[in-house]
Amino acid sequence: MANCGKYTVAVVGALGAVGREMMSILAERGFPLKEIRPLDAPQNAGAKAPFGDGDVTVLPAGKGAFEGVDIALFAAGEDVSRSLAEGAVKAGAIVIDNSSAFRLDEGVPLVVPECNPEALRNHRGIIANPNCSTIIALVPLKPLHDRAGIRRIVASTYQAVSGAGAAGIAALTGETRDALDGKAITPSAFQRQIAFNLIPHIDKFEDNGYTKEELKMLREGRKILGDDGLMVSCTCVRVPVYRSHSEAIAIETERELTPQEAREILSSAPGVKLFDDPERGMYPTPLDTTGGDLIWVGRIRKDISAPNSLALWCAGDQIRKGAALNAVQIAEKLIELKLV
Amino acid sequence: MANCGKYTVAVVGALGAVGREMMSILAERGFPLKEIRPLDAPQNAGAKAPFGDGDVTVLPAGKGAFEGVDIALFAAGEDVSRSLAEGAVKAGAIVIDNSSAFRLDEGVPLVVPECNPEALRNHRGIIANPNCSTIIALVPLKPLHDRAGIRRIVASTYQAVSGAGAAGIAALTGETRDALDGKAITPSAFQRQIAFNLIPHIDKFEDNGYTKEELKMLREGRKILGDDGLMVSCTCVRVPVYRSHSEAIAIETERELTPQEAREILSSAPGVKLFDDPERGMYPTPLDTTGGDLIWVGRIRKDISAPNSLALWCAGDQIRKGAALNAVQIAEKLIELKLV
Repeated sequence: MANCGKYTVAVVGALGAVGREMMSILAERGFPLKEIRPLDAPQNAGAKAPFGDGDVTVLPAGKGAFEGVDIALFAAGEDVSRSLAEGAVKAGAIVIDNSSAFRLDEGVPLVVPECNPEALRNHRGIIANPNCSTIIALVPLKPLHDRAGIRRIVASTYQAVSGAGAAGIAALTGETRDALDGKAITPSAFQRQIAFNLIPHIDKFEDNGYTKEELKMLREGRKILGDDGLMVSCTCVRVPVYRSHSEAIAIETERELTPQEAREILSSAPGVKLFDDPERGMYPTPLDTTGGDLIWVGRIRKDISAPNSLALWCAGDQIRKGAALNAVQIAEKLIELKLV
Repeated sequence: MANCGKYTVAVVGALGAVGREMMSILAERGFPLKEIRPLDAPQNAGAKAPFGDGDVTVLPAGKGAFEGVDIALFAAGEDVSRSLAEGAVKAGAIVIDNSSAFRLDEGVPLVVPECNPEALRNHRGIIANPNCSTIIALVPLKPLHDRAGIRRIVASTYQAVSGAGAAGIAALTGETRDALDGKAITPSAFQRQIAFNLIPHIDKFEDNGYTKEELKMLREGRKILGDDGLMVSCTCVRVPVYRSHSEAIAIETERELTPQEAREILSSAPGVKLFDDPERGMYPTPLDTTGGDLIWVGRIRKDISAPNSLALWCAGDQIRKGAALNAVQIAEKLIELKLV
């Protein structure tokens, strides 16, 4: 559980889907750890969490848990972040929070390392990890924005059940077995049956008829790109896929951008895998990206319905780049920028 | 197999997914049949096709098959339509063709009975049934177009495997069982694994990077609405759902149309079920619409990314309203308009 590195890293929610992935990614990337400290709800203290080739004992997230911690990765939901993050900061940790608790707060950098790493310089202890769909869209859109100035995004998402954590994954398996066996299905993790179905409802509805999830791409996108004029409309849909989110995106730009130029930009963009030769069957599917680190982009074409517009399709592992990996990359960037 | 009606109706491709549904719908709606004549490939002649409470014997689709036929419903794919439709017309039948063979031909009405029934008056023997996704989008969009003038549609589809017929349905079941059992999967009906996956590829790619399927909503939509200025961009995606297609649609209109006005229009629009009270969990899912006749519409909201724009979500059974039912409704409309 100790390493030859300098940093003590806590993972809050170490037994959840994202927390487990954070542990796994820290190990696989050889993060310079002095100590890994898995934290979870007090009733889970003493459980074993896999780490590298072995496992580590889970400690209770609570008072004293953050003493000596340099970086605390929070992946236990908004309520836990609200109750424990400030204390972790007071104890001397830098918090990288995967929940939506602080994302839009002034003084809290909201960071995708490929897009806006410099924002990390202004943190006051808490750094927010953006929403999964926002990350997956912005990794490829940021370099296109830099070149052509994106004015409007219309996105439809195809979001995996892992967005609802381990319960979402279990629901898809259980409901699918029941459906194949002709048994009646009682939805558990989602509002409706998800097996062989779609649910256009993720997070709560706001007064304007959008869900909070749909508005995240607008609100978080503006903050990450530093562009309050960006217009975004999004429809977020849960689909019976396990791990990776996909998105059909139409963008309108200030300056013309041809599909070929977009392909050239994306072929060398950080965090992106250009996979765009449809005649040869090369376009991303969520399964292609499952377990991987990159956002795959394909189906790039001139949007024939408007001037200065492009359509594209992208997919990325929402537990990794959409959550756990992005948080670890923020931690790595903090080290690189000597901010920790 | 005989009825007390006046019309002899042939169903070409009577053993396929759409043909079976046509037979079923003719029986359930009490279509005024003198005779039902199920036709299929010669090697399938003699097979039994279910009809009403019994079944009828399949005859070979070929020479002589259309003698005495008043209406021939074609549901056996483009090649069969190209080789047999003209002969059926010469034998005296009116052909209602579910394939894409003649949809854009001059002199061939392309009809959604709720949208443009009057086009039937100009037929010369062949009437085309539009593409499933086009029908499912236009049934709710036509009345909005009449009121506000739709200038642009941006649509992302979530298309069921039944669009690939019985083979598509079998592939989803087989692959899903294999995936749950941890077995390797070799795609059969689709380009990639469809179980727990998505495939942004339906029909062939054209030079502009869109698939033919995606361009159908543009080309067929313009013809059905009689509006060559309509702009459409579409991304068509196959999803692991059995029967109903869903679509996330953004429209831009000439005149302002509020979500409340759109709801009022759609609450009494033919072929539409307004299901739009998201706070109470009322939004369409494909399962809700499976086996039904209506296009369900919900998630209607002001598209906050552009002026004069609306976003909505709709779903409909693609084998029924997207194919078989629409064809039977065309036949009913021919009778109502005294065109047969």
